[in-house]
Amino acid sequence: MTNHQNIPTGFAASHMDEFLDDLCALVRIPSISTSPDHQASMHQAAGLLVETLTRAGLENTHIIQTPKHPVVYADWLHAGPGALTVLVYGHYDVQPVDPLELWDTPPFEPTQAGEYLVGRGASDMKGQVIAAISAVRSVMQSGSFPVNIKFLLEGEEEIGSPSLKTVMHQYRDLFACDIALNPDSGMIAPDIPTIVYSLRGLAFFELKVISAERDLHSGVFGGLVHNPAVALCELIAGMHDSNGTITLPGFYDTVRKITPDEHERLDQLPMDDQFFLEKTGAARLWGEKEFSPIERVGARPTLEVNGIISGYTGAGTKTVLPAQALAKISCRLVADQVPEMVFHQMEAYLRAKAPATIRYELSYLGGSPASATDPNSPVAQALARALETVWEKPVAYKREGGSIPVVGDMQHILGADSVLTGFGLPDDRIHSPNERLHLPTWRKGIIALVHFFLNLAGDR
Amino acid sequence: MTNHQNIPTGFAASHMDEFLDDLCALVRIPSISTSPDHQASMHQAAGLLVETLTRAGLENTHIIQTPKHPVVYADWLHAGPGALTVLVYGHYDVQPVDPLELWDTPPFEPTQAGEYLVGRGASDMKGQVIAAISAVRSVMQSGSFPVNIKFLLEGEEEIGSPSLKTVMHQYRDLFACDIALNPDSGMIAPDIPTIVYSLRGLAFFELKVISAERDLHSGVFGGLVHNPAVALCELIAGMHDSNGTITLPGFYDTVRKITPDEHERLDQLPMDDQFFLEKTGAARLWGEKEFSPIERVGARPTLEVNGIISGYTGAGTKTVLPAQALAKISCRLVADQVPEMVFHQMEAYLRAKAPATIRYELSYLGGSPASATDPNSPVAQALARALETVWEKPVAYKREGGSIPVVGDMQHILGADSVLTGFGLPDDRIHSPNERLHLPTWRKGIIALVHFFLNLAGDR
Repeated sequence: MTNHQNIPTGFAASHMDEFLDDLCALVRIPSISTSPDHQASMHQAAGLLVETLTRAGLENTHIIQTPKHPVVYADWLHAGPGALTVLVYGHYDVQPVDPLELWDTPPFEPTQAGEYLVGRGASDMKGQVIAAISAVRSVMQSGSFPVNIKFLLEGEEEIGSPSLKTVMHQYRDLFACDIALNPDSGMIAPDIPTIVYSLRGLAFFELKVISAERDLHSGVFGGLVHNPAVALCELIAGMHDSNGTITLPGFYDTVRKITPDEHERLDQLPMDDQFFLEKTGAARLWGEKEFSPIERVGARPTLEVNGIISGYTGAGTKTVLPAQALAKISCRLVADQVPEMVFHQMEAYLRAKAPATIRYELSYLGGSPASATDPNSPVAQALARALETVWEKPVAYKREGGSIPVVGDMQHILGADSVLTGFGLPDDRIHSPNERLHLPTWRKGIIALVHFFLNLAGDR
Repeated sequence: MTNHQNIPTGFAASHMDEFLDDLCALVRIPSISTSPDHQASMHQAAGLLVETLTRAGLENTHIIQTPKHPVVYADWLHAGPGALTVLVYGHYDVQPVDPLELWDTPPFEPTQAGEYLVGRGASDMKGQVIAAISAVRSVMQSGSFPVNIKFLLEGEEEIGSPSLKTVMHQYRDLFACDIALNPDSGMIAPDIPTIVYSLRGLAFFELKVISAERDLHSGVFGGLVHNPAVALCELIAGMHDSNGTITLPGFYDTVRKITPDEHERLDQLPMDDQFFLEKTGAARLWGEKEFSPIERVGARPTLEVNGIISGYTGAGTKTVLPAQALAKISCRLVADQVPEMVFHQMEAYLRAKAPATIRYELSYLGGSPASATDPNSPVAQALARALETVWEKPVAYKREGGSIPVVGDMQHILGADSVLTGFGLPDDRIHSPNERLHLPTWRKGIIALVHFFLNLAGDR
């Protein structure tokens, strides 16, 4: 075991420059998935990944075409009978770069600045993809691999993965695995290795309130017709009580309770009121008083107005009594809420509360359930030990407030839980100008992933 | 008196075609005040009015230049000592004509269609201006005029009369009068001659709620930061109680009560629930149950959201927790509310109700007080008798829910109340394509104005 471990970590430590070259080559390709102008770049990036994976010792490396952007597949399946199969998930597409004028260096010319590599996708998530491939390549130097390993690298994550579900259904056998490693979540801080074991789900609605056939004169009819913007405000105002608790009937019925153990564990994360006040610039935090900030973002569902519009909102004034008002509303969900059920709860709320003076239309724009992984599973524990070996600090187990739909999709389609980690930091400016990757953390991450794969040998 | 009356009404009755020619000539000029392209037309219209007024027997006819569009003045001041001075107010500018493709005939080619004259401004208010000039011209045929008469015709009413206050201050002596006749209000129906004795005022606000420094990710921070759209909805929802009564502190303190007499009079107007349901297409009427619909629009103040905007309102979904939300709010005011006081009441409401989890900015965008005229004044009664002579029906005394700021401005600057009437009908499509004027009603209106001026002789 010692020898087994020494070769890969030694190789990884002595090939960091080469791994960085691989990353820079990938960052140089402007693989912006949302833009039709970058179709050729998407194929170029997929091609480069095929080559990088092959060089790492993976086999069966090929591209799966989709209606939009290609999926890259690779595997190594010689771990023998009874071995685990681990699927590494990643995406090689990146966010657009506007506003371009706010970048200090060109987004697709990866530039080292102190301890950082600056460039679009350096952190989200080309850096994480190259870290995983580099770790696999390092372990392969021992001449073998402790588990069966597969890669699924998509090019549509930043546009909502429209092809991925179909591809997973179609190639269910190819992607079959016991567990997925998803390095698309990040660390709380450079000295806190982090495993995410819970993601929130989503349910999207659009609510339109209609009062009259057309916009009316606020003088001629004001006082007689229920202003639809006011009516919409009244309906939205009633969706929370004064504590910030959501009032949709039955909304919390299936919400999984936070155990005392978990409460204690979450309480130890260095994410208190001050942390969130600084991150948001809010004057004061809001929300359910009986839960800590980290519980409110991670373990409690929310209801947000993502957008609202009615009437005249330009300069000056207009004495209009608008005909209608519209709100985009979404709920972040936790286990075991079902998005479609939440839609029915919203319907029930409106049936009970909408006044007879207006008409309304509620649409369901889609959703995805929350997903949770057991942080005590052997694979999660193998990762935890690996992170602790490298950082020499205890791992933080974190609930993530956001949603990564692919995690839920893999649970449903492949029957595989995901272990989530990653080596991005909160100030990596992902999706923003001057995105960057903290290279010392990234290098530690590669070594940690080497340990992770080696640790899995013990779990046979 | 009989002879005195016969000459003018006879002249008016036999010159209706000529009056209509005058109106068509004025409608032909595209005097759209909001468009810089129509500057020459504004001067052309003012010039035509100078000529028409002069032909009617008025004197001292001239144009007063303003920073924008000219004011037309004319008078005849030989009624002798003790005679009343009546100022006729009107405007010769019109609304834009878009959407042009919805017009059946070109908007500036006045076209007779059955009993209607179709064209922009035919009803609002070139038709009313020509009716007043034609009535004065008819009365002048008797060789004299029962009162001193002045005309003030502006070219900026449709853009909020930006120059008029200054002009009235500057030429206060020129415009000095005992009473103003404003034929810019309309009739309830063709068989109901109408006098408007009350107009609502206005107060405009903009309310911005700010939660965070920038738009936030609704997953990463949702549950911790007070959504500004939700907070704005909560504030707006609290501005009315469940009866539709406004909750701003002190809001009704100075609201003039409806007397039992007036209540009874308003109750007789043919404007019930069904009337307003048809006009608006609302499913059900809304508002203070203890007041009738006509009282709610005429004698009670309102608070309307004219516009609201926050976050993402395009197609699909965006998981944004917006940084801010904005509402345009206006109140229609009744006597004796003061717009600036209502602003302070809004400030007090927000001070008491705005939560510490948000910041807000409230701006005052201006306002104008309500205006009321005594419907029993001798001049209003002279008009009422004139209308009843022609229509042979009782006059309807109506409170108007809208605001005509010039009425309040004349009260403040010239010290003169306005008597409001007019011969436009609710379905004249003013401000809309295919604006039209009901010619039989318009012709009756000219005769009625002749009687009105003659009736004033008895009031010396």
